[in-house]
Amino acid sequence: MLTEFDTTLPSIIQVQNLIKQTTPVELKLLTGDVLTGKVIWQDPQCICIADANSQHTVWKQAIAYIKPKVS
Amino acid sequence: MLTEFDTTLPSIIQVQNLIKQTTPVELKLLTGDVLTGKVIWQDPQCICIADANSQHTVWKQAIAYIKPKVS
Amino acid sequence: MLTEFDTTLPSIIQVQNLIKQTTPVELKLLTGDVLTGKVIWQDPQCICIADANSQHTVWKQAIAYIKPKVS
Amino acid sequence: MLTEFDTTLPSIIQVQNLIKQTTPVELKLLTGDVLTGKVIWQDPQCICIADANSQHTVWKQAIAYIKPKVS
Amino acid sequence: MLTEFDTTLPSIIQVQNLIKQTTPVELKLLTGDVLTGKVIWQDPQCICIADANSQHTVWKQAIAYIKPKVS
Amino acid sequence: MLTEFDTTLPSIIQVQNLIKQTTPVELKLLTGDVLTGKVIWQDPQCICIADANSQHTVWKQAIAYIKPKVS
Repeated sequence: MLTEFDTTLPSIIQVQNLIKQTTPVELKLLTGDVLTGKVIWQDPQCICIADANSQHTVWKQAIAYIKPKVS
Repeated sequence: MLTEFDTTLPSIIQVQNLIKQTTPVELKLLTGDVLTGKVIWQDPQCICIADANSQHTVWKQAIAYIKPKVS
Repeated sequence: MLTEFDTTLPSIIQVQNLIKQTTPVELKLLTGDVLTGKVIWQDPQCICIADANSQHTVWKQAIAYIKPKVS
Repeated sequence: MLTEFDTTLPSIIQVQNLIKQTTPVELKLLTGDVLTGKVIWQDPQCICIADANSQHTVWKQAIAYIKPKVS
Repeated sequence: MLTEFDTTLPSIIQVQNLIKQTTPVELKLLTGDVLTGKVIWQDPQCICIADANSQHTVWKQAIAYIKPKVS
Repeated sequence: MLTEFDTTLPSIIQVQNLIKQTTPVELKLLTGDVLTGKVIWQDPQCICIADANSQHTVWKQAIAYIKPKVS
């Protein structure tokens, strides 16, 4: 997938802030899965989220929404 | 995803108006979720919607429709 | 999403005709929802459909088919 | 959606042949719907299928497969 | 959909080999359907799969995976 | 689908590392399927995963997430 990764976009900046602030998040996927944890990194294709026990690299195409647990 | 963000498009303008007028909306997702609240911002990739208790950053790819509660 | 909006395409023209003729339509979405009403406008990203009570701005990515009630 | 419509592609030619030969087809959608009828036209964005009673303009993004009833 | 069809890619070559070797395959779709048969042709948009009784032209967007019955 | 394959991206590198290290992974698909095995190769379009008994070539569009069993 051709992806854009303009680091001035609010949505890209928001995820960067979630990474820096290690904010707990909920990530809802198009499969209906809800992953919880902290965002470790993002790139144009994926977002990586981890909790104490596991690490998921999620394709952005599969994301419905991200919800910071602290807004 | 390569996104276009032509601010002269009716659909972009409509969302901008929903933001300015703080209109309550329903956002139906491809997951079947229905989020309610006010639109806080949009960018080419996402729409952010919030109510009193929570804030969801929704990927546009996951949106089925937006329905202003006041039309 | 990068969208094309070539107004000479049969599918774009058909929707324009549905708008001009205010033809009642059924819009089936990938969520399984069926919206009914008249098409108010289209742009490269969305189709707006309204009935007497409500108005839905539908992202084209979420459309399965449109079915004119009068063909 | 940016679409390509290269009329030398086997898949485009196959649909053109289904149109010319008025072959009955089954069109399976990502919603799970199965539409039956004859293909009336295609463009880069949609395929229009009709039977005696109705006409559906299907967005290509929503198509899983097309199956000629006569192969 | 803008498609790329670089015939040096492993995934394109693999499907070409399945065609040449007439390997029986399973094709799982995003609808949950599993089609079985032999791959007849591919182009940038579709993969055509046939068994003794039927022939399906599958849009690539709808494919989850292909699984050679002989690996 | 137009795909980018920038081998400096974290998500591409991560998959390359999973290949080199033959790390067991779980691959969750948008169909809800969970495939387990080792990643054999990736290209811009697909990821190939195999276990002792079978081999699946998965279209990237169908991937929800990849989860290394050892992180």
